[in-house]
Amino acid sequence: MGASLLDQLRTILGADGVVTDPDVTAGYRRDMMPLAPHGEPLAVVLPRTTEQVQEIVRACARHGTPIVPRGAGSGLSGAANAVDGCVVMVLTRMNAILEIDPDNRLAVVEPGVVNLDLRDAVAKHCLFYPPDPSSYDWCTIGGNLATNAGGLCCVKYGVTTDSVLGLEVVLADGELLRTGRRTVKGVAGYDLTRLFVGSEGTLGVITRATLALRPLPQAPGTLVAAFGSTAAAGAAVSRVIREGIVPSLMEIMDAVSIAAVETHLKTELGAGRGCAALLICQSDAGGEAARRELAAIGQACRDCGAELAYTTYDLAEGQMFLTARRAVLPALEVYGAWMTDDVCVPRTRIAELIEGCARVSEEVGLRVAVVGHAGDGNMHPTIVYDPTSPDDLVLARRAFDQILEIGLGLGGTVTGEHGIGKVRREWLVREIGPIGLRTHRALKAALDPAGLFNPGSMFALQ
Amino acid sequence: MGASLLDQLRTILGADGVVTDPDVTAGYRRDMMPLAPHGEPLAVVLPRTTEQVQEIVRACARHGTPIVPRGAGSGLSGAANAVDGCVVMVLTRMNAILEIDPDNRLAVVEPGVVNLDLRDAVAKHCLFYPPDPSSYDWCTIGGNLATNAGGLCCVKYGVTTDSVLGLEVVLADGELLRTGRRTVKGVAGYDLTRLFVGSEGTLGVITRATLALRPLPQAPGTLVAAFGSTAAAGAAVSRVIREGIVPSLMEIMDAVSIAAVETHLKTELGAGRGCAALLICQSDAGGEAARRELAAIGQACRDCGAELAYTTYDLAEGQMFLTARRAVLPALEVYGAWMTDDVCVPRTRIAELIEGCARVSEEVGLRVAVVGHAGDGNMHPTIVYDPTSPDDLVLARRAFDQILEIGLGLGGTVTGEHGIGKVRREWLVREIGPIGLRTHRALKAALDPAGLFNPGSMFALQ
Repeated sequence: MGASLLDQLRTILGADGVVTDPDVTAGYRRDMMPLAPHGEPLAVVLPRTTEQVQEIVRACARHGTPIVPRGAGSGLSGAANAVDGCVVMVLTRMNAILEIDPDNRLAVVEPGVVNLDLRDAVAKHCLFYPPDPSSYDWCTIGGNLATNAGGLCCVKYGVTTDSVLGLEVVLADGELLRTGRRTVKGVAGYDLTRLFVGSEGTLGVITRATLALRPLPQAPGTLVAAFGSTAAAGAAVSRVIREGIVPSLMEIMDAVSIAAVETHLKTELGAGRGCAALLICQSDAGGEAARRELAAIGQACRDCGAELAYTTYDLAEGQMFLTARRAVLPALEVYGAWMTDDVCVPRTRIAELIEGCARVSEEVGLRVAVVGHAGDGNMHPTIVYDPTSPDDLVLARRAFDQILEIGLGLGGTVTGEHGIGKVRREWLVREIGPIGLRTHRALKAALDPAGLFNPGSMFALQ
Repeated sequence: MGASLLDQLRTILGADGVVTDPDVTAGYRRDMMPLAPHGEPLAVVLPRTTEQVQEIVRACARHGTPIVPRGAGSGLSGAANAVDGCVVMVLTRMNAILEIDPDNRLAVVEPGVVNLDLRDAVAKHCLFYPPDPSSYDWCTIGGNLATNAGGLCCVKYGVTTDSVLGLEVVLADGELLRTGRRTVKGVAGYDLTRLFVGSEGTLGVITRATLALRPLPQAPGTLVAAFGSTAAAGAAVSRVIREGIVPSLMEIMDAVSIAAVETHLKTELGAGRGCAALLICQSDAGGEAARRELAAIGQACRDCGAELAYTTYDLAEGQMFLTARRAVLPALEVYGAWMTDDVCVPRTRIAELIEGCARVSEEVGLRVAVVGHAGDGNMHPTIVYDPTSPDDLVLARRAFDQILEIGLGLGGTVTGEHGIGKVRREWLVREIGPIGLRTHRALKAALDPAGLFNPGSMFALQ
């Protein structure tokens, strides 16, 4: 049966589109989340056209062989991890930007387009594709769609689903579904587009997307504020929100993150001077408006006890602060492997979450650095562990779960932007309850009755 | 069977919550779309609590009696129209604003809250609930959610679905589903919230919503531009979009609309001087930013041949222009009854749509006034007819359909914000195709297998 499917796949794709060499397939077995299990695929397939995707789906359906779709594999939930005997469908060869329409501010792309390549291409038309996950220089639009990816821009510009007008999706029987439209508004029927966005490859394979673009924002001004306590930093975030300011970026780093980055970049961010938290904010409103916004943010920070609030309109200097923020994960690698959590709490509860993470760190005895999108309440507590120690992995999982528990307790969600995948299945049930789970299963059964796509990811089928 | 269900409903709701008097139920049989058919309900029920909604759903499910949920009945697609023998569930008594949380910029409301009441309540906290359908002073949030309502704000602030964080929905078996969250980001599971938003009462009954609020914008500046041709006005819209300007409002009135309003308000808008189209734009960016935006829009209008482009920062004067815009429908009542269409086209195709509507008007011999949200490409060609003439109704339907045909041909959608309901069912199939229709039916069957909710609205069940 397996051999016969492989033959069919080779007929559909040619020999170079079907990989079975275990040394090569090993690179496609998993994403970036070390806690998630993975299996051994039967084969890895790399289609180049929608028609090939349809034929692969039909062949796999006939053989009852599950399909795990994936892009670059930058995910952090195990949603793209192989299950035993599956076909891993890699969409990276479908990487054409099919159309950029500046007059209607939209782009039509294949799923394998790298996020940064799209950003660069539309910038030439003075347009902006906002979603910017940390992996923006290598993750693909298809993966961004499947996980409803976020990033640093969300506080002002929303997440991936807010930039999608329509999709083409190959369904479990190989038929091609077109959702949405090219107009900016439209309510013809159910919002199928947003049902597929964030469905983590469990409902179909996205082969094309029509994306809404925005005007390219003004060059940003940047403000950095240092606080002696996380409570003060949290209060400043709340104050900014309450005052009706909408920065284009508002990131937080806790003391552990600051110290790691200082060591890594051999720079001075204030950890030595008792700085417990940094806020990095930007305004892209331009001119007077940006100055007014950043002045108001600076005042809010000082009112909440910031020891320093420094504003710059020098782009290179502003970029330097963002580089420090983006260096947190690599900086932690000095101490061991990292795994990053992803809780989103009401914006008034950020300080409590960070303080909770410090308690978890102390209890399990592992370093936990908190970095996050403060303007959204979306925090990434990152646990550092020794990957060669089985004990450490158990402790890391414990810390990971305890942080989710704290997040839920604060009125938050167990995933702000990384997804459920194979690492938060039990937590999905905790968050949405039995009626929510039953609804998920009903929708999955309606669209993929045989459980062909990514089975066992997000939730158990029964 | 019917009597027994009525008894059960009276037990659940008390006598004042169940209406069977045909003189009273007549007021709940239909919405504002004269073309859509309606039936005679068995009863109209007016629950006050979620528990009552659950009990009503269970009782109706046991009796196989369909439920048509509705709010104020301001809809324009017949989605809330009764079917014979159904129970019309009116949610207007569930009208509590349960919570306003300024620190997290959200509100929790029941479905019967009137849009304007919510706007006024959150404005006291310097917050803003953007969706503003024309009926905002009497339509309800529940109806806005069910239809994914839009309005004049959408060009900058999106439609209803862009302001919803979570819902409580009574499902077809009476169970209560909670979707979404209170945080601004979250990707735990499928986006059930946005599946229910815009589902027009076919999947469940929304009994509570958590809504995202924005900071109250600055007082707007207003620009009015007059054009000698619709092509010039359309070109100006395209120019504004291409230049990356995002006004907070951008409305268009064609010559027929202008003339009707001039007669109705006894004012002078330029029709006599050969004005073929007016654009009314606002910027709420405040201060210098608003002045810059409106200056750029004015320049774009003049570059495209505007005969006049007048800007005012006087609020009362700006409001006067909006009053003229909002007066189009009442102004048309002098000539007969009106029915308004709702096509959304790519923003570069507005002039072609308006010109197409003029051709339709000539062909069917009925007045067609086009007014619309130019910044979104969402046009409301409004057909005037004699409601006492059966011939006129046939001609009006013909015009209605021909306009949808033109909209689809221009790459648009058959409904930008009013919905499919009972008046565009065939057009939904035209737009989404057989695979789209099959997908809709599969989702409907998954969530409402007996076809309890609003059967036959949006699409035929088989």
